[in-house]
Amino acid sequence: MSKSRLEAFSDGVFAIAITLLVLDVKLPPLADAALGRAMVALLPRVGVYVITFAIVGVYWVAHHTFLGYFERVDRTALWLNNLVLLLVAFLPFPTSVLGAHPLAPAAVLLYASALAGVNIAGTALWAYGAAGGRLVSSRMSPLFARRVVALHGTPAAVYLLGGMLGHLAPVASIVVFVAVPTFFIVPHPLIARVTGVPWRDGSPQA
Amino acid sequence: MSKSRLEAFSDGVFAIAITLLVLDVKLPPLADAALGRAMVALLPRVGVYVITFAIVGVYWVAHHTFLGYFERVDRTALWLNNLVLLLVAFLPFPTSVLGAHPLAPAAVLLYASALAGVNIAGTALWAYGAAGGRLVSSRMSPLFARRVVALHGTPAAVYLLGGMLGHLAPVASIVVFVAVPTFFIVPHPLIARVTGVPWRDGSPQA
Amino acid sequence: MSKSRLEAFSDGVFAIAITLLVLDVKLPPLADAALGRAMVALLPRVGVYVITFAIVGVYWVAHHTFLGYFERVDRTALWLNNLVLLLVAFLPFPTSVLGAHPLAPAAVLLYASALAGVNIAGTALWAYGAAGGRLVSSRMSPLFARRVVALHGTPAAVYLLGGMLGHLAPVASIVVFVAVPTFFIVPHPLIARVTGVPWRDGSPQA
Amino acid sequence: MSKSRLEAFSDGVFAIAITLLVLDVKLPPLADAALGRAMVALLPRVGVYVITFAIVGVYWVAHHTFLGYFERVDRTALWLNNLVLLLVAFLPFPTSVLGAHPLAPAAVLLYASALAGVNIAGTALWAYGAAGGRLVSSRMSPLFARRVVALHGTPAAVYLLGGMLGHLAPVASIVVFVAVPTFFIVPHPLIARVTGVPWRDGSPQA
Repeated sequence: MSKSRLEAFSDGVFAIAITLLVLDVKLPPLADAALGRAMVALLPRVGVYVITFAIVGVYWVAHHTFLGYFERVDRTALWLNNLVLLLVAFLPFPTSVLGAHPLAPAAVLLYASALAGVNIAGTALWAYGAAGGRLVSSRMSPLFARRVVALHGTPAAVYLLGGMLGHLAPVASIVVFVAVPTFFIVPHPLIARVTGVPWRDGSPQA
Repeated sequence: MSKSRLEAFSDGVFAIAITLLVLDVKLPPLADAALGRAMVALLPRVGVYVITFAIVGVYWVAHHTFLGYFERVDRTALWLNNLVLLLVAFLPFPTSVLGAHPLAPAAVLLYASALAGVNIAGTALWAYGAAGGRLVSSRMSPLFARRVVALHGTPAAVYLLGGMLGHLAPVASIVVFVAVPTFFIVPHPLIARVTGVPWRDGSPQA
Repeated sequence: MSKSRLEAFSDGVFAIAITLLVLDVKLPPLADAALGRAMVALLPRVGVYVITFAIVGVYWVAHHTFLGYFERVDRTALWLNNLVLLLVAFLPFPTSVLGAHPLAPAAVLLYASALAGVNIAGTALWAYGAAGGRLVSSRMSPLFARRVVALHGTPAAVYLLGGMLGHLAPVASIVVFVAVPTFFIVPHPLIARVTGVPWRDGSPQA
Repeated sequence: MSKSRLEAFSDGVFAIAITLLVLDVKLPPLADAALGRAMVALLPRVGVYVITFAIVGVYWVAHHTFLGYFERVDRTALWLNNLVLLLVAFLPFPTSVLGAHPLAPAAVLLYASALAGVNIAGTALWAYGAAGGRLVSSRMSPLFARRVVALHGTPAAVYLLGGMLGHLAPVASIVVFVAVPTFFIVPHPLIARVTGVPWRDGSPQA
């Protein structure tokens, strides 16, 4: 399995999963006069659509970025990647549940767990490939590898924390779900600092 | 993120969104004898399917054409492009609403806003990349860059105008939704003139 | 628009349309004991799934084969190709109607018309590109170009004829829908003869 | 038809089929308070989603691996491959039936037959291409070709056996459905031995 075919297949699953999200935004049969009110009632689903789309977009960029450091893939990396895809392809379900029940603690916890799952699997894939230079350049510094683990793994903890907040204040959970992708989308000094870490001691450029 | 991977991912989302549109054209369970009448009743949905397919086709061609001028992409371009994709992937929803309520002002306005959204995001992506030759050749003439902004951005205003017409005469809105893609699909002297503008002063060929 | 990107986008639409067909094969909620009978009742849908999958497969192979002769694409070819894709992406709808009403003349006629539409659009794309060597090699023999028109266009007439048979004997229509793709899938002396026609006078090899 | 385009199209169908599986995991409209219990009731569907995703993943890896040995494809290989795709694209249906009726013998048998079908078609594609070095290197040893037949074909028999177990003990069938992909995912001495067989006598490296 070449790395490029693995990437193309992964891109396909990301693109399909992201596009299927909209199937959950739909109106029941109703009269023209009731349309305005029904569309307003759909706003939570639209909001969850936007949040999930942004989060999958962040995953996709992260996936592409760290695979860019891989020089080869092996059987274990392939199946860790398939685990990432299984979890990404699953996201339309928790998205649908949260869209229908935006303030229910169970929906918030399910959504948070699903998001954390993708991050944990992706972090495992990175850690497996980077450990001891197994699939990446042997010149990559352990510090760089660890910082990417932290950068990619921390959101999992934040999502889970956000999910547990749902029993106290579901609105706070939603704030967390919005804040994490915003952190990664908006240019940010911290990301620059981490990715600016020389990935090989002595070489400032990744 | 290489430009070619961005394009391939975008193509995937365009292809999936365009193909999901048909899921909204369907019949309820009914007797064979009622089939003819039920199919006639579906004609508005089929019409909206055709219009949206044509409009997304125009977006896809435009997206490909202006990205063709890009020499590189950066983080901001990536996320502006993801915004375009978020809006393209959303189109099956307003398409479905308009198909079910072809003459309801609210449906017409939603549809027009969604179309305008894609055009505005795409124009922003172009303007960001072309400004000062940021992501395109520094030899591209500012005049060419501005004309593309006008060509890509004007439909947004036309769609919104068409959408607001819906409160007076929804049929006029539909005419607008048909006219705009037709303008871009049928060979047209104006498009030729704009794209014939030398993109570099002194060079007649784009 | 490069030919290879047009092909990749087309492949995407073909692959998605072909895979969405299965969404129409599904069971209503029912008790375990009723499962066997319900699955038998689904057999017409499964049969129509298989037929449409085979027909789209034949289209895909034909599309790939004749585009293989193109040396370039232009704006008109692009939009004729988009028309092919619009009609291919539409096929899940007539497939669903025929699956639900396998012996209703209206369903048979709709299905036949949709199939004929794809063939007519594809033939128009080929005829446009091949005429006078517009997009193909100028050395292609007119005889070869005309034979491909016949080979690609005849099924349209056969499908329409089959569709009209539906008012007399819907089973005969189904036989036609099975026979046409079978003709193209099973190795066949006639296809070999047509594609064996030298596409350039004096050169025996395509 | 080039091998690479066949592979890309196949990858597309695999990716779409695998991603559509989740559409079957969904909740009916219900009150927030009923959410926890409803999610627990969905666990069988989630389980079947995971199993099918893993099995399609195994198919995808196998498909890629054995096509890697092909040096060319012909018309027959193309249509055998389309048969594989028809059966892969069909999998969401038996997955849905098994998810709704996890312990019904008819659902178990349908699922087992669908899985066996993909393996049989894939084995036929390999056997056709490998026989007498028709589409693979003529230096491939017959022993290697036969071992791949055994490795790819045996699961079909195991699935069918598992499916028939459903009349006695459906749980045993589920165990079989879990065991087969696990066998192929977890690194395993037997797979290593088979794929370690020199594919050309005298050459230790595949």
